[in-house]
Amino acid sequence: MRASTNSCTICRRRQVFFFRPYSGQRLCRNCFTESIEAKTRATIAKYRMFSYNDRVAVAVSGGKDSLSLLAILAKIEEVKPKSALIAVTVDEGIKGYRDEALRIAKKSCEKLKIEHRVISYKELFGLTLDELVERKKRKANSKLTACAYCGVLRRRALNEAALRVGATKIATAHTLDDEVQTVLMNIFRGDLARLAKEKPVTDYVHPRLVQKVKPFCEIPERESALYAYINNIPFQATPCPYASEALRNDMRNMLNSMELKHPGTKFAVSSSIARLQPAIEKTLAKADFGECAQCGEPASSEICKVCEMTREFA
Amino acid sequence: MRASTNSCTICRRRQVFFFRPYSGQRLCRNCFTESIEAKTRATIAKYRMFSYNDRVAVAVSGGKDSLSLLAILAKIEEVKPKSALIAVTVDEGIKGYRDEALRIAKKSCEKLKIEHRVISYKELFGLTLDELVERKKRKANSKLTACAYCGVLRRRALNEAALRVGATKIATAHTLDDEVQTVLMNIFRGDLARLAKEKPVTDYVHPRLVQKVKPFCEIPERESALYAYINNIPFQATPCPYASEALRNDMRNMLNSMELKHPGTKFAVSSSIARLQPAIEKTLAKADFGECAQCGEPASSEICKVCEMTREFA
Repeated sequence: MRASTNSCTICRRRQVFFFRPYSGQRLCRNCFTESIEAKTRATIAKYRMFSYNDRVAVAVSGGKDSLSLLAILAKIEEVKPKSALIAVTVDEGIKGYRDEALRIAKKSCEKLKIEHRVISYKELFGLTLDELVERKKRKANSKLTACAYCGVLRRRALNEAALRVGATKIATAHTLDDEVQTVLMNIFRGDLARLAKEKPVTDYVHPRLVQKVKPFCEIPERESALYAYINNIPFQATPCPYASEALRNDMRNMLNSMELKHPGTKFAVSSSIARLQPAIEKTLAKADFGECAQCGEPASSEICKVCEMTREFA
Repeated sequence: MRASTNSCTICRRRQVFFFRPYSGQRLCRNCFTESIEAKTRATIAKYRMFSYNDRVAVAVSGGKDSLSLLAILAKIEEVKPKSALIAVTVDEGIKGYRDEALRIAKKSCEKLKIEHRVISYKELFGLTLDELVERKKRKANSKLTACAYCGVLRRRALNEAALRVGATKIATAHTLDDEVQTVLMNIFRGDLARLAKEKPVTDYVHPRLVQKVKPFCEIPERESALYAYINNIPFQATPCPYASEALRNDMRNMLNSMELKHPGTKFAVSSSIARLQPAIEKTLAKADFGECAQCGEPASSEICKVCEMTREFA
């Protein structure tokens, strides 16, 4: 007897719950969940993201992607106990937003029995993002958005947290969507240096910069969200009150509508770019990494961007 | 006395007729027309499109872009009479469409006193596009669209026309929009070889392939259309009845809405790609150009695409 069209393409027994347009698969809840876990494991293997003795800091914001990633890495770790996980959360200091996410992240880590560390802008840079935005309003000469400051500061904070817990890798939950949006933004902005850098495993450029890996880089955002939903993972769903990346929103909308019409578009763009990157890298002058004259952290110029920014608000 | 906000940014006298968002210029009719002509001249110089003794075949479809280009090249030729112009039109054989365009092209050439040659699919390949589409309907096994066939056949026909009139260059009226749509389509389809080839002046790869140049590659489509309108150039405005490039339409809409929100986007993408191309070219294996075993025309495989296609309908 042939399986009915209402039964899962993989197990051929349970009822279809999700249709995956780019592969044509119709999956039940179980097989969907397993497919996401298998894809994550395959991505980790494909890009050799982890070594046997790695201590992995998982960047947990409290959103759907990072909490799904944490849950999956915890499952993998059960099998491979030698590579230890620690969850790290950056507290930018955004009232009514990050405090809620922190509570959710903390609970998730307790449930998964994973150590959880929080690092704050206030402690590291002397001011919260709320305070920075307040001062920026008064000093109207700054053209940068809150996101532009926060991007630089968060990268530093995450690296600092990883160093403090002795991590050898940072795992972030960037999805296929995040990656494709970012590379197209770089093309639309003409930033080829950044385009070349956007990879599943970041290059090793300085002993104090912990390498970042992206085990979700081949998982569409909607599937990462669905994974959290099916597996009863609570997450923060409200967007950041400062979120203002107009170009990213346009890219997201454009890519989603293209994906709807031409399933597989996001994968195609991602693979095009991956094939372009080695070529771009060869033409770019290698950035000379030294140390910031002020704080001693890794920097590609005399004064690092973090010191430049915090100085502005001193 | 300061010029009022209603007077042209360039001449400061005549009334504003056109606002150019990416430059902030507000132009009168005259200065707009001159700016398009100056930009075309500058593009020709920048990419060294023409040599002193070139005989240039201008590909004239009868649409706004090709007739604007022909008019501008004719103006330039008045000053530089040594490089001769011949207009060539490819007659695909599309009833109720190309026949009208042919009449318009012919009249334009008469007015400009430029020799006009027509080359037809019927004569070259033994069947019109209408006939090809008819046969395709009966042989339902072909997955290619009419545009896919027509692209290959038109390229061959244009080259053949250029050879027949002894041209040393083919000038096509591809605009900034066409170019940016095409390169993004190549990224979205993962076709890096084509991405590398999409340049203002095509590479010289075979003595029987006439080099193509694109003097409008830095002119937005809407400005090329406006040029035709202001300068009373009649053109065919109805689209081809077979036009079906879904991906190109999506790219056009997406780029237009991005350009509206972020003026200068198309130029930014174009310049990003131009910077990427040398890098991509280095990584690609050089295509070996030989001759088709059947027709003797330049081909990168044993049998050229044209023979492959025409054989299908023999």
